[in-house]
Amino acid sequence: MKFEVSASVAYKALSASTLILNIQPFRSAKQVVLDESFTTDPLLKMKELNSISGEKRFKIIEIPEAGDVSITYKAIVENEFRIIPAERLDDVPISLMPASALNYLNPSRYCQSDRLYRFAYHQFGSHQHAYQKVMAIRDWIYTNVQYGGFTTAQTSAYDTITEQIGVCRDFAHLGVALCRALTIPARYFTGYAYHLTPQDFHACFEAYLGGHWVVIDATKLAPLNGLIKIATGVDAVDTAFASIFGNLQFVNMSVSTASLNPVFEELDFDTTAQGYSYI
Amino acid sequence: MKFEVSASVAYKALSASTLILNIQPFRSAKQVVLDESFTTDPLLKMKELNSISGEKRFKIIEIPEAGDVSITYKAIVENEFRIIPAERLDDVPISLMPASALNYLNPSRYCQSDRLYRFAYHQFGSHQHAYQKVMAIRDWIYTNVQYGGFTTAQTSAYDTITEQIGVCRDFAHLGVALCRALTIPARYFTGYAYHLTPQDFHACFEAYLGGHWVVIDATKLAPLNGLIKIATGVDAVDTAFASIFGNLQFVNMSVSTASLNPVFEELDFDTTAQGYSYI
Amino acid sequence: MKFEVSASVAYKALSASTLILNIQPFRSAKQVVLDESFTTDPLLKMKELNSISGEKRFKIIEIPEAGDVSITYKAIVENEFRIIPAERLDDVPISLMPASALNYLNPSRYCQSDRLYRFAYHQFGSHQHAYQKVMAIRDWIYTNVQYGGFTTAQTSAYDTITEQIGVCRDFAHLGVALCRALTIPARYFTGYAYHLTPQDFHACFEAYLGGHWVVIDATKLAPLNGLIKIATGVDAVDTAFASIFGNLQFVNMSVSTASLNPVFEELDFDTTAQGYSYI
Amino acid sequence: MKFEVSASVAYKALSASTLILNIQPFRSAKQVVLDESFTTDPLLKMKELNSISGEKRFKIIEIPEAGDVSITYKAIVENEFRIIPAERLDDVPISLMPASALNYLNPSRYCQSDRLYRFAYHQFGSHQHAYQKVMAIRDWIYTNVQYGGFTTAQTSAYDTITEQIGVCRDFAHLGVALCRALTIPARYFTGYAYHLTPQDFHACFEAYLGGHWVVIDATKLAPLNGLIKIATGVDAVDTAFASIFGNLQFVNMSVSTASLNPVFEELDFDTTAQGYSYI
Repeated sequence: MKFEVSASVAYKALSASTLILNIQPFRSAKQVVLDESFTTDPLLKMKELNSISGEKRFKIIEIPEAGDVSITYKAIVENEFRIIPAERLDDVPISLMPASALNYLNPSRYCQSDRLYRFAYHQFGSHQHAYQKVMAIRDWIYTNVQYGGFTTAQTSAYDTITEQIGVCRDFAHLGVALCRALTIPARYFTGYAYHLTPQDFHACFEAYLGGHWVVIDATKLAPLNGLIKIATGVDAVDTAFASIFGNLQFVNMSVSTASLNPVFEELDFDTTAQGYSYI
Repeated sequence: MKFEVSASVAYKALSASTLILNIQPFRSAKQVVLDESFTTDPLLKMKELNSISGEKRFKIIEIPEAGDVSITYKAIVENEFRIIPAERLDDVPISLMPASALNYLNPSRYCQSDRLYRFAYHQFGSHQHAYQKVMAIRDWIYTNVQYGGFTTAQTSAYDTITEQIGVCRDFAHLGVALCRALTIPARYFTGYAYHLTPQDFHACFEAYLGGHWVVIDATKLAPLNGLIKIATGVDAVDTAFASIFGNLQFVNMSVSTASLNPVFEELDFDTTAQGYSYI
Repeated sequence: MKFEVSASVAYKALSASTLILNIQPFRSAKQVVLDESFTTDPLLKMKELNSISGEKRFKIIEIPEAGDVSITYKAIVENEFRIIPAERLDDVPISLMPASALNYLNPSRYCQSDRLYRFAYHQFGSHQHAYQKVMAIRDWIYTNVQYGGFTTAQTSAYDTITEQIGVCRDFAHLGVALCRALTIPARYFTGYAYHLTPQDFHACFEAYLGGHWVVIDATKLAPLNGLIKIATGVDAVDTAFASIFGNLQFVNMSVSTASLNPVFEELDFDTTAQGYSYI
Repeated sequence: MKFEVSASVAYKALSASTLILNIQPFRSAKQVVLDESFTTDPLLKMKELNSISGEKRFKIIEIPEAGDVSITYKAIVENEFRIIPAERLDDVPISLMPASALNYLNPSRYCQSDRLYRFAYHQFGSHQHAYQKVMAIRDWIYTNVQYGGFTTAQTSAYDTITEQIGVCRDFAHLGVALCRALTIPARYFTGYAYHLTPQDFHACFEAYLGGHWVVIDATKLAPLNGLIKIATGVDAVDTAFASIFGNLQFVNMSVSTASLNPVFEELDFDTTAQGYSYI
């Protein structure tokens, strides 16, 4: 499917600063960036890098002096969205996992899976297969966690499991943590999301099932087939949209995602017995 | 009922120190200390005080110089254990609670009820009466939390609800926190416990139901009618057995509780529709 | 000195609720409430209680149904502010402390003194007397912690010592925690504060020195002799202005403190070698 | 220099399990593993993988059924230890850092640099150059943090900065966190350590200075030039010696490091104005 995405962000620099932005769709065989433009006002020195771990690319932007800065990104992206039958989303034994999946079994700052073993086992242990466990995790989060609230940069899965309120970031962290607690590799996913209201960057997660990274959204706020992947990583630390070094004040941001497809049929979250993958 | 309790504790003082011990049964109209002796070797200066909040008394012991110290306490205690029918354990509206109960609605260090509202409501909100909620809390803890593990002085109800492992202290903190989250005053209870194996100080909690402080033990490790109350308080901070100021190394401790009753019939935890109170 | 204080607060009740307000100056031999009025619109059932621990009184207000509620409190208060020479603010040995002071040696939720021993000893251990240690604590906080920021209901002394940003509540918690870590009883103080800009409730702390509760304000935002005490307690949990049971939305609040003295001379924070007490 | 290292570890398997061990020295141009043997009793299926992020290799060991398992690893390693003059350890601007260094500017679970900015700035901000800052960090940790205590799997840099007690893991996490807070990339280092008493795996950290990963040990427990690197990573999560999936009880472990050099002259920690690197 084909989408046009854009993001604009403005800062007020109070001193020379460096800004790292991670807002460009990830390039892969299954997601092609057909056209993109990245502009700054005033004109600033930029460099693009690819992550050596995770899957992301990012721009390092040098702001040489105090002043207002605005940045605009636009791209046309074509991605291929696969539907995989549930029976092909089997458990993968650890000894058959590649190093790239094993890394996502570890607990991380916002996904403390090592502290959730008993909870996960009590709540989801009766399901036999990894795919069923992941669906049960998604549904438990959707049912028990209220969307909203005032979570902070310190809020983690360990908090959300008990406080039961949060935004997309918190829903994703909790999903990742519970999968890992059940020895299912899981990673944090950020992207543009068509039909997300209001438009913003979105976060959900991917679970490693049957050798595929299957995308899961416990918020059910946007259709899975309208996601454009920016990055995947260990958790929100790894995939932050902006990292600031220096004295930059955030002014405003806008995000938009438009469909360039003649028809867009929203995928139904409750279609069971299948998974959805972007890779 | 009548019990003989004793506790011995030894320290190695590396410098002049002050030790506060809270190991004597609380005196009340319903619990009479018939006889007690508190001895130290070497002979040390001691002072007894009563708490102005909570319900406890404690000894302040001055250790004037480095050396080995051993302390032995023995007492004969008679207490009256009341069985109250469940229908008299109604919800108490806040406006009718005395100040002494209102204080136990607040969150505290180890019982962060303010962070457990949604969990408590999702898990126990369907029960109509406070008594039923408290029984459901007790049973949820007993069923889901594994007795054992290596909890530390930092472990709180907020941890135990998710990590689902702990000792009597952790079971009690979680019970207190969940009651408070449902606007039921609850306080931490420490005491001697007959038929607890191995013998040690025990912790459980009291919930304020129908104007009574009803004792609840989610560990189900010792019969309720074999408890001798030492103290009640906000949480374990408030009721610590020993507080050390100076440089004292713990050497060893032993605790024992013997029944002086001709017959002792263990109360069955699963006798329903009634509560048990010591006050 | 004589002050007129007032506080107005408005809520939108979404259901029947109970509200506990702790906004009335504490009555003592040294602080006399000459006149006060507590009105609600609409007229609501109220009850006044005194805390059995801590030092506070509070109103329990029953809101019988959904609707807008506004509450106005006004009082004229006369208090006596004592200046005590530093040489009378000696260390008090634990064995000579009354139970009412010993209680304030314990760590608490927001003042985890048990985790700050080494920090406190390294930073303040070279001062010989308790009074000097407390002044050094006040100055360290004032110098190192930035006033402002977005602290939450979860922020504690343990956070502020490292994050070094906070509001009056955080400054007070850190002061309390560091005193307790050095075996100096300390308690949280809330009150009205003349010359505080903008007008709001204020928080600072009291340290137990030479048998006196000496008031300390590490924010240095308002003159000590313009404080009117509402409550003292273990920490902010114990002295919250409002506790809500039910579904009340906060709408707005205003606070004012006026001097009724012919002359008001601001006490200089840097006047050394003396302490200031309200009791 | 040339070393012989070995590690033996025994577990009691209570069920079929998978064990991942990360105890083999990292292979690089500067560290050559001349000879190694990895044996299990009973004979078990093993697979070796290399991390895709971090720098480590690990063995995945399948334990097919309950029973006792013992594992022995031995290797002869030759590594090249470089001494780099301080004047070549300049600050590196963010825009010149490679992706492999940028990743180590992020906060992580045990190294919450985002919460330590003000502390780091107050304590180390007066030093002009990154090298001086890193040396000041090392010395502050060495001076203020007591070696020892009972830290747990939850203890992080955020705890150690205040509690000021810990083991090599905690010293390393705090060093990493403080460097990152000052915009100096830093990573956790695990290895064998010659002359460490008692022999065990060791942890320290590397700071990115002048384009080099310079090794720093704030514990000063073992000579830098006796280190054999096993892994570097984000923090202890990333570089755990053993990860267990299943039901394995730890029985015992022994580690040894012997010098195969005719002469081994311990590097003096207080030799200033230079850095030490293994890569």
